Amino acid sequence: MKKVAVILSGCGVYDGAEIHEAVLCLLHLARQGAHYQCFAPDKPQHHVLDHRTGAESSEQRNVLTEAARIARGDIQPLSELDAGNFDALLLPGGFGVAKNLSNFAVEGAGCEVDSQVLAACGAFAQARKPAGYCCIAPVLIPKVYPAGVKGTIGTDAATAEAFIAMGGEHIGCAVTDVVEDEHYKVISTPAYMLAQSITEADTGIGKLVKRLLEM
Amino acid sequence: MKKVAVILSGCGVYDGAEIHEAVLCLLHLARQGAHYQCFAPDKPQHHVLDHRTGAESSEQRNVLTEAARIARGDIQPLSELDAGNFDALLLPGGFGVAKNLSNFAVEGAGCEVDSQVLAACGAFAQARKPAGYCCIAPVLIPKVYPAGVKGTIGTDAATAEAFIAMGGEHIGCAVTDVVEDEHYKVISTPAYMLAQSITEADTGIGKLVKRLLEM
Repeated sequence: MKKVAVILSGCGVYDGAEIHEAVLCLLHLARQGAHYQCFAPDKPQHHVLDHRTGAESSEQRNVLTEAARIARGDIQPLSELDAGNFDALLLPGGFGVAKNLSNFAVEGAGCEVDSQVLAACGAFAQARKPAGYCCIAPVLIPKVYPAGVKGTIGTDAATAEAFIAMGGEHIGCAVTDVVEDEHYKVISTPAYMLAQSITEADTGIGKLVKRLLEM
Repeated sequence: MKKVAVILSGCGVYDGAEIHEAVLCLLHLARQGAHYQCFAPDKPQHHVLDHRTGAESSEQRNVLTEAARIARGDIQPLSELDAGNFDALLLPGGFGVAKNLSNFAVEGAGCEVDSQVLAACGAFAQARKPAGYCCIAPVLIPKVYPAGVKGTIGTDAATAEAFIAMGGEHIGCAVTDVVEDEHYKVISTPAYMLAQSITEADTGIGKLVKRLLEM
């Protein structure tokens, strides 16, 4: 049974992990016979947004604590992720990737990736273990892999431009499909960067998980 | 295209809606061609729990605001739910049903159901429109329907006893199956009352949604 580490970035599309994508990742992993373990950085969220109104709240929330809601409590601090114990890595999307796992939402192509995230993702890259990135999470790919690495964020021109500016080769992709870099064993799918419905996100994520486990 | 109202009770299994169940409900509704609209009561949560440690927090959160995270912002206050605009009703589980939609977690069989929840669920019952209840949500069934209504919470003896004490006829049920009351058009499935994995919950919820849309 293959073991897959899943990195979550909070709980909620606008300030954390996209919940549908996260659950679909876990569903497809389990359905395809893999064991998963969730991780998240133990640090404050960038901010907290009211998902109904868009208003910023004065609350402070912790990325790990909120991500634990998606994982039904079964989650570990990202500092404890040892790539040697897993066969593959999977990152759902959501603004949390661009606000908590990195500062891409603020800095764009000039962003920095959280040091624990960079270390964890980098360990899978160096071990040539397959990794899957959904939705906006592929903006981390050019920071984790050498220049020329292939990935997709769908078709959003500004985000694709930033992907290229960071050294990646961006490939446009439909929501129901994936882009593979066979050399670096990294796969990406647009998910809610393009999805108009949960079923569209489901199709792309299902395909990504299938390839991730085949690699 | 059938329209289904989904009532959420927050965001997170221990103090709100069970996230996997909620997303699986939305997934199966969309996949089977139904349109869904999420609702939640606009009121404070019973409490806030750290899902990793189980510790109670001093925070106050709002049921509607938190449920909006699962609905990606597309959610309405439960006070605006008009059963006349929908073909069916669906409630995922999670402790939020027993803490925010009712006080079953504290009062057991002597519980009261939130007045807006009772009015909303009661409107579907009176119109003989089908309704689906997952996991712990079926504890609301004996409060919504006349005595003798059939339902399941799986196999938990104490919860089944409370279901019976409230006037329902409890029928033991496997996690991958559903219990139907054909007379009252209400269906229930144990989901995470019994599920050992997300795939088990997925099977039962998929079956429940299929029957809900057929009824």
